[in-house]
Amino acid sequence: MANRAGKGDATRAAILSHAVKLASRVGLTGLSIGRLAGDLSLSKSGLFAHFQSKEALQIQVLETAAAQFVESVVKPALVEPRGELRLSALFRRWLDWARSQKMPGGCLFVGASVELDDRPGKLRDRLVELQRDFVTVIATVAHQGVLEGRFRSDLDPDQLAHDLYSVMLGYHHASRLLKDPRAEERALAAFEALVAAARPRRKTA
Amino acid sequence: MANRAGKGDATRAAILSHAVKLASRVGLTGLSIGRLAGDLSLSKSGLFAHFQSKEALQIQVLETAAAQFVESVVKPALVEPRGELRLSALFRRWLDWARSQKMPGGCLFVGASVELDDRPGKLRDRLVELQRDFVTVIATVAHQGVLEGRFRSDLDPDQLAHDLYSVMLGYHHASRLLKDPRAEERALAAFEALVAAARPRRKTA
Repeated sequence: MANRAGKGDATRAAILSHAVKLASRVGLTGLSIGRLAGDLSLSKSGLFAHFQSKEALQIQVLETAAAQFVESVVKPALVEPRGELRLSALFRRWLDWARSQKMPGGCLFVGASVELDDRPGKLRDRLVELQRDFVTVIATVAHQGVLEGRFRSDLDPDQLAHDLYSVMLGYHHASRLLKDPRAEERALAAFEALVAAARPRRKTA
Repeated sequence: MANRAGKGDATRAAILSHAVKLASRVGLTGLSIGRLAGDLSLSKSGLFAHFQSKEALQIQVLETAAAQFVESVVKPALVEPRGELRLSALFRRWLDWARSQKMPGGCLFVGASVELDDRPGKLRDRLVELQRDFVTVIATVAHQGVLEGRFRSDLDPDQLAHDLYSVMLGYHHASRLLKDPRAEERALAAFEALVAAARPRRKTA
């Protein structure tokens, strides 16, 4: 029994991993059990056994992408020293994520944010929770930097988190839509300017 | 003949003005002659007489929105004094545009940017041209400010244009998806920080 369940879980994980890539290209709302079945050459009935509805599939895809994001971006950044190094690791890993092979159509969360902004429902609610959680992670990293004296004491961590989110959205727009060859350079320059403005005005060391 | 043509033009303009609002809500790719006909209680055949294909309709909607943007945002800003005042007028009018009644589902261009980033074709090509044109307008306003000594001489106008675009995308994300009540305040603070960093380091006055 345990083995059979284990095999079912592995199949489900493999399907979800593929579904994340598909959703990166066609959008979370473009994802359906039928389209995923066609893409994977599996039967629709077999996929229905794993995901009872289109919405259940979409939410599972969102959870899978969020778990990948935590593993690839958040966790490795949080082992860096507090302050600028940690914030920089978070930002650079986030850039890498947006252009990784896991995301052939660009960051799934950026696409979903625009797709779902006018579509009330469970999927939108969960997306908003995940995005707020990540904004809070950035703000916490900024706040820790303040507490340790690595950022200036009057820094607004929530503003910095908002600003970093804007920089990432600008990078996505410039690289994916405009195909600007300097998109990464622009994003890094914007990041450096934000960090420079966050440093203590006089060295305390 | 002239009168009949004039009436046809007025009808077409009224249809396009409505289609812009519809596209703001359902996306440019969600727009079709059938959906527009249903929304306006007009016959599909009547709409086909105005727009020969879905793509022709979508491109006309994009052109109409671009013309509205130039009238509402760009032209009035360009009569302001060069430098900070002009840049500020451009930014504030752009904010107003993104939440105006013309755009009930948020800025059409932001939505279209994500919808079309992976869809090659005439519609995407035209969108990219329009977006590049507007980035160039911002960079030009910044460059004029440098030439008149109102911004620092080593300011990179293209970087500032990219950064302002990022701020606007962050505003859209925070206000429309996250429903952050401080979205506007955050966007204005980000704008002020960019302008403060653009000012000459010593007053030349």
